[in-house]
Amino acid sequence: MATSVLNLVIRSAGSPLRQTGLKSRRAFRLPYVRFYSQQNALDPLEGGTFKFSELQVSLAGPELLKPKPDVSNLIFGKCFTDHMFEVEWNVEGWGPPRICPLHDLNIHPAAKVLHYALELFDGMKAYRGVDGKIRLFRPDLNMQRLLRGSRRCLLPQFDPEELISCMKRLIKIEEEWIPHSETSSLYIRPTVIGTDPSLGVARSMQAMLYIILCPVGPYFETGFKPVNLLADPKFVRSWPGGSGDVKLGSNYGPTVFVQRAAENSGLQQVLWLYGDDHQLTEVGTMNIFILIKNANGEKELITPPLHGLILPGVTRQSILELVRGWNEFKVTERPVPMKEFLQLKEEKRLLEFFGAGTACIVCPISGVSFLGVNHHIPTMEQEDPLYARVLNTLSGIYYGRISHEWSVLVD
Amino acid sequence: MATSVLNLVIRSAGSPLRQTGLKSRRAFRLPYVRFYSQQNALDPLEGGTFKFSELQVSLAGPELLKPKPDVSNLIFGKCFTDHMFEVEWNVEGWGPPRICPLHDLNIHPAAKVLHYALELFDGMKAYRGVDGKIRLFRPDLNMQRLLRGSRRCLLPQFDPEELISCMKRLIKIEEEWIPHSETSSLYIRPTVIGTDPSLGVARSMQAMLYIILCPVGPYFETGFKPVNLLADPKFVRSWPGGSGDVKLGSNYGPTVFVQRAAENSGLQQVLWLYGDDHQLTEVGTMNIFILIKNANGEKELITPPLHGLILPGVTRQSILELVRGWNEFKVTERPVPMKEFLQLKEEKRLLEFFGAGTACIVCPISGVSFLGVNHHIPTMEQEDPLYARVLNTLSGIYYGRISHEWSVLVD
Repeated sequence: MATSVLNLVIRSAGSPLRQTGLKSRRAFRLPYVRFYSQQNALDPLEGGTFKFSELQVSLAGPELLKPKPDVSNLIFGKCFTDHMFEVEWNVEGWGPPRICPLHDLNIHPAAKVLHYALELFDGMKAYRGVDGKIRLFRPDLNMQRLLRGSRRCLLPQFDPEELISCMKRLIKIEEEWIPHSETSSLYIRPTVIGTDPSLGVARSMQAMLYIILCPVGPYFETGFKPVNLLADPKFVRSWPGGSGDVKLGSNYGPTVFVQRAAENSGLQQVLWLYGDDHQLTEVGTMNIFILIKNANGEKELITPPLHGLILPGVTRQSILELVRGWNEFKVTERPVPMKEFLQLKEEKRLLEFFGAGTACIVCPISGVSFLGVNHHIPTMEQEDPLYARVLNTLSGIYYGRISHEWSVLVD
Repeated sequence: MATSVLNLVIRSAGSPLRQTGLKSRRAFRLPYVRFYSQQNALDPLEGGTFKFSELQVSLAGPELLKPKPDVSNLIFGKCFTDHMFEVEWNVEGWGPPRICPLHDLNIHPAAKVLHYALELFDGMKAYRGVDGKIRLFRPDLNMQRLLRGSRRCLLPQFDPEELISCMKRLIKIEEEWIPHSETSSLYIRPTVIGTDPSLGVARSMQAMLYIILCPVGPYFETGFKPVNLLADPKFVRSWPGGSGDVKLGSNYGPTVFVQRAAENSGLQQVLWLYGDDHQLTEVGTMNIFILIKNANGEKELITPPLHGLILPGVTRQSILELVRGWNEFKVTERPVPMKEFLQLKEEKRLLEFFGAGTACIVCPISGVSFLGVNHHIPTMEQEDPLYARVLNTLSGIYYGRISHEWSVLVD
């Protein structure tokens, strides 16, 4: 497997790989490209950027340092490290970036983030490799996405490279918090909030960017636990002309109610549908993939295209590039309507269905409840399943078992 | 005019008025009614309610009191009174409600409000009447809407009557902040935020409800200034299966970018369209009304129905009830596609177009820019225009010139 990944690096430099997906993407992206180019024209790095070279570090005294947790018992997102990164912005530009002890934020009760959801975030991880070295995975992609989202809600711009440098320094300071385990990691949460203390739906003239860190344990403690999904056309996550392709807080608030509807039905996650043909778009907060046997009897991996309704996941993009690099079967970005999905399943041509995201890497799906009918998906019954192969390869890169240009050392 | 308003009170008790709108509303609401009834089944007052009888009041010392501003120069939402109301919630229920000096909130950087927009608000006003008495306008409707929105994002429930009692006490304490002017008022901002300090898209198990107050000057300082609108189908505010009919922060964050696109084109507000037929839905943060001459040559007032895409405005509902009470012309709740709107305009049957909301009461519209063409709307050229009559009547009720059951005294 290591060989095929290394092959990818060589192949992905050429154009054939890119051409594979471009045609279908372009067909769906056209109206959005126009939208984004307008966006890009607005504020190219308005307010400049903060600089790593001006980073101020103030460490917590020993009395403030918390004991490191037992990672095997960690619940995601509830345990934080001792320090955070923060930098404030106003119309005069960025203030000095700081690393300081983790602390509550003092926020005016009229701050725009509390009323109009002028906020966005990203999610990534630092891994302690088998060689003891600390690695990030494609942090440039996360930072580009954060920047694009910040532009989408008129929050300030910054140089992603400067933010990555500050982030590396924070991770280095918190190095001891990174679990010594090949199933655990340090979750990194960069966040941008609009802090302008004024009511009225308008751009925030004050903002803050910060990073907090969480050690996280294994997503699947004892082997894979496939999930069952609620697919209810009543609930729609994202729509053309909205903001479903950037990581704004707005995309998440309205979903907790729907997630609860799934749980109330004994299901684990929501399968988000869109349109009259009930296209499958995302699962919970993950991108989706299906592996099918197509009309020619060949295997084909399909994921919905980046047509504006889909969050452009870093794991999604990496899986596409990885599997295309293997060059073993067709890889396609196109919409999948529920009717086709159920027909593939009926004809026993639907082999696997899985979610992909930073939290779980891949998450196999074994059932979909649609309009009151539970449909079993045979993801767990495949021999040498693709989802497991993808997970092993990505894990190999994360933890340094496979050397890859996607890995970025924190040193 | 006072007489017709009083007539309304008597008429609205009967059923004919309600029947007028019911048929069209039901036709569009059906799928959403099902949705809401599910919602209502979830958490009837889970966690109980806080109680006005347990309200704790701690007043600011004289050194903290700010000078009252000159209301004629006030910019909306930037000047706050000396005190605020706050009450915290966790899974064990509500803590004691408090009135205390206005202060920054201490919020954990992982709080769900900062990442997933678990937040909502409402907007209402207190008026100093011509008789010197302080009045609220239908506060029960705002509080019911806040409660419904809180349910929509699984934030805690409360008894609206208890909140109104606490709010009245706060307003009484800040009475001197209410401008002595019939064009100014005290803006009231109740807000609910999810403060649970844990990452992961899930219900917030901690929350806070607070109220802050802003004195606000006249919306139109020197007579009416009609606005011109950008109507661009690329941007969509709300969609079926979303949350556009509750006042979640999520509905606003993605709009500031679009508002700026309007301003960049020299226009003041966004006209939000929906669907293949480009239905007119809202303007900025206001509901919309058009007054037309219909196919029978009669005047007809039309506003989009509450089919899930529209915020159920208190001003909207009051205008509908008021004008129906006048019984002078037809009042209809139905979608208005852009094609029909432009045809009405072309045939000179489009008489008035105005927005309606708490901030401006009514806001006349004189132009719409749609697909690169500026369409002039003759709202300002009508004799004895409806928007002005509506404004005068509502203002009469707000400031106690017209006695009405919608007024609630703060005493």
